[in-house]
Amino acid sequence: MEEEEMAHGWAARDSTGVLSPFTFPLRAMKGDDITLKVLYCGICLTDLCTIKNYWRNANYPVIPGHEIVGVVAQVGREVHKFKIGDKVGVGYMAGACRSCDNCRADDENYCPELVRVFNSFYPDGSKTYGGFADTVVVNEHFAVRVPETLPLYKVGPLLCAGITVYTPMKQHGLAQPGKHLGVVGLGGLGHLAVKFGKAFGLRVTIISSTPHKEKDAVELLGADSFIVISNVEQMKAAAGTMDHIISTSAGALSLSPLVALLKTHGKIIVVGTSIKPMEISSFDLVSGGKSIVGSMIGGMKVAQEMMEFAGEHSVTPEVEVVRMQDVNLAMERLEKGDVRYRFVVDVANAFHHSRGV
Amino acid sequence: MEEEEMAHGWAARDSTGVLSPFTFPLRAMKGDDITLKVLYCGICLTDLCTIKNYWRNANYPVIPGHEIVGVVAQVGREVHKFKIGDKVGVGYMAGACRSCDNCRADDENYCPELVRVFNSFYPDGSKTYGGFADTVVVNEHFAVRVPETLPLYKVGPLLCAGITVYTPMKQHGLAQPGKHLGVVGLGGLGHLAVKFGKAFGLRVTIISSTPHKEKDAVELLGADSFIVISNVEQMKAAAGTMDHIISTSAGALSLSPLVALLKTHGKIIVVGTSIKPMEISSFDLVSGGKSIVGSMIGGMKVAQEMMEFAGEHSVTPEVEVVRMQDVNLAMERLEKGDVRYRFVVDVANAFHHSRGV
Repeated sequence: MEEEEMAHGWAARDSTGVLSPFTFPLRAMKGDDITLKVLYCGICLTDLCTIKNYWRNANYPVIPGHEIVGVVAQVGREVHKFKIGDKVGVGYMAGACRSCDNCRADDENYCPELVRVFNSFYPDGSKTYGGFADTVVVNEHFAVRVPETLPLYKVGPLLCAGITVYTPMKQHGLAQPGKHLGVVGLGGLGHLAVKFGKAFGLRVTIISSTPHKEKDAVELLGADSFIVISNVEQMKAAAGTMDHIISTSAGALSLSPLVALLKTHGKIIVVGTSIKPMEISSFDLVSGGKSIVGSMIGGMKVAQEMMEFAGEHSVTPEVEVVRMQDVNLAMERLEKGDVRYRFVVDVANAFHHSRGV
Repeated sequence: MEEEEMAHGWAARDSTGVLSPFTFPLRAMKGDDITLKVLYCGICLTDLCTIKNYWRNANYPVIPGHEIVGVVAQVGREVHKFKIGDKVGVGYMAGACRSCDNCRADDENYCPELVRVFNSFYPDGSKTYGGFADTVVVNEHFAVRVPETLPLYKVGPLLCAGITVYTPMKQHGLAQPGKHLGVVGLGGLGHLAVKFGKAFGLRVTIISSTPHKEKDAVELLGADSFIVISNVEQMKAAAGTMDHIISTSAGALSLSPLVALLKTHGKIIVVGTSIKPMEISSFDLVSGGKSIVGSMIGGMKVAQEMMEFAGEHSVTPEVEVVRMQDVNLAMERLEKGDVRYRFVVDVANAFHHSRGV
């Protein structure tokens, strides 16, 4: 029997969520697996909520990280998509059944047997550890090719935040120039919704709870307009003008004022979640043929398409790169919303790799 | 100046909602108007809620009725769709701007200047009186041709209840054999949703709050199955099996148990309304890419299509025909839900027409 290969990462041991160095047995490579030397990994709110066990689903020790960019260091003998040295991205998913209706419809993200890239288990019981580690082994199906034109330190957030907003925009007809998109919440997801929206040729309006983000929204991100949800005049002027609204807010939403902004048949596309239920008047929906639609990340086919689109149109997140030894501080700042607009951990520099690439 | 022509109907004078004979000036015919001798008129919950002023929008005196079937008695000189003697139907709408985005998209039902066929006003300030009257004058655009094959006393409910369920079924891809439709609420709308569903070749499951409607649902209406929402075993067995669910319930809905019945990308199509807001968990929607969708009646193009489909497939409501002098009793019974499944008033026999057809 082959000796177990060990890898190194940073893990949380309990609900304090404090991350510290952790050594773990690397998943044994299968024929269709690739081994990745991790370069960068974005930080998503889901990482924070998991390591602090806010959703009561932490399987400690937890190595978070699901916006993973790396270099292929080894390939299994059946791998056909990648070769050693390729730059690849891995997002939220590490496995799915590949045979259910959802998988066959390229909706692996809705597979009932979805294996998440961290804090999850493969059918054989082995655990997944995320991208805050020197090495990740994953089935090639769940990796995407990274276009040459994209700076690697900016790629990570595309793999969760990016795909999460890109997928419903494509699905609900927003990849059409001239349409009017509203974006609620200007964090990691929201700022990428603005950027993809502009790349699609949309008119983009930020709908914010506070006026202080306006300058960034317009000057840095390129939004066309900015309205404050408590500003009655602004909300009235924008009523009935938006094709769809993407809500990236993780807080409880007051949906009625947003629904009023939609045109007939408009949709509130919910990609941010909250424990508190949403409330909506049936009259508000019925009288305009309007919808509240949920969407969760995206399948691998659309993920590859999104990467290529981002490469062609230079859609990249605004990131702040942090060292692994500062990751606990970054988590604290993320919890306070103090980030413009996504943290990315410089993973490669945190470890002495035994396998050089 | 021409003398004003008078017509006869039954109107409510105040929030008691009691209907009694009422004489009113007939709308003067315009070039594209038709004058209808009313034969039958269905009774919808909206009639009840309006005459009793439950929605605080009654403009007394109110002649209700918006499921109107009649014979064309006169045509304006620009009328091209109809000739004298044609059997026609008129539903909820009597006017719209005909030029806004919604109107141009055959969605007159969402026109901001929609004129309802009763309890409403034309732009010139004149009032609309509904189908509980001997005569109705309406623009030909808002009338549909009635197929010869349909018994006239059964046509009325198609014009509001029918179109209200048919439109979203077409719009959301339910006109495809083999799909699985859930129907909540087995009243006027719900029972027609079952019948249209079976005519489309769907598998139809009734989702009910009480078990006592099962026999009718299956034997009379042809539903494939019947589950009770409080029956945990039945709900569990049906989880994830339905493409979409049409909710015709006018009461407050507990959405989470319904959302659990949907497949990925499934929709709860809300056509019944309640003053009480609906509550929904963002996790429930996001984790399956699911939606809550509103829909209100339907445009005139789809209304004509629905009538032809109903004619070809013999889709007709179950009705109880009542005399006009019994209409107050019918309203009382409707309020208690004591109707299988729609009341239709025999209007023609209630009046001595001066203009014979």
